Amino acid sequence: MENFGEIEILLVEDNPNDAEMALRALKKNNLSNQVMVAVDGEEALDFIFAKGKFASRQKSRKPKIILLDLKLPKIDGLDVLKEIKSNPETKIIPVVVLTSSREEKDMLKSYQLGVNSYIVKPVDFDKFVDAVRDLGLYWLLLNQQPD
Amino acid sequence: MENFGEIEILLVEDNPNDAEMALRALKKNNLSNQVMVAVDGEEALDFIFAKGKFASRQKSRKPKIILLDLKLPKIDGLDVLKEIKSNPETKIIPVVVLTSSREEKDMLKSYQLGVNSYIVKPVDFDKFVDAVRDLGLYWLLLNQQPD
Repeated sequence: MENFGEIEILLVEDNPNDAEMALRALKKNNLSNQVMVAVDGEEALDFIFAKGKFASRQKSRKPKIILLDLKLPKIDGLDVLKEIKSNPETKIIPVVVLTSSREEKDMLKSYQLGVNSYIVKPVDFDKFVDAVRDLGLYWLLLNQQPD
Repeated sequence: MENFGEIEILLVEDNPNDAEMALRALKKNNLSNQVMVAVDGEEALDFIFAKGKFASRQKSRKPKIILLDLKLPKIDGLDVLKEIKSNPETKIIPVVVLTSSREEKDMLKSYQLGVNSYIVKPVDFDKFVDAVRDLGLYWLLLNQQPD
């Protein structure tokens, strides 16, 4: 059985190409050991709240960062964000929206819901690798979270 | 008259040595052009909400990042954070707590109030310079904010 308790990065991404690109970027920066990929909003929330197939997971073990796409099947990214940030237990998990949307309304809504940071995916692969490195180092090493 | 509209970094720090160290670290990383230092919580809120001596400032021009110490005269850092994050207009400004406190209760309270990130000041100056560079680049270049 996998030890979900050790997961440091939860990547919520439905597009397999984008997920693969993010995993490659994390690997290139030696940040890929403890990543879990959720392919839709429902799976993300099941993981975070230790429900469904993740019911045996210890909910108190929180990822250090959630990288959240916005356009997701089943439950939309903004609704996932809302669930996380409206619950005092999960509000303390940093959430970075990582999206291709530069739309003002998506940014505004994300900040209103309490997103920690909003990053527009660079289209160029090398720039994307750099962005993932910078955000990985920032949230895994520099940022501090309560236990 | 100073053009406060161009301020990108609002540094809220009462200790002149710490403020000087932060300014030196920003300068070393070419990030010091558009910094404003507020020396207590009241001055910080006056700047953010364009009140008092900042009444002529255009409130719609928001800093890209607020670096907030916790132990502040007049109005405490956590109260400043609460004011910023409970107002829909200012909630969209990223706030990074930059403090010497590793106390669990300060971290927890900051996250509960909606802080974007929490960084414990490295004691060593070189490490502090690196931390300021990393957070400056992250919040000024990588993170996106609505207009």
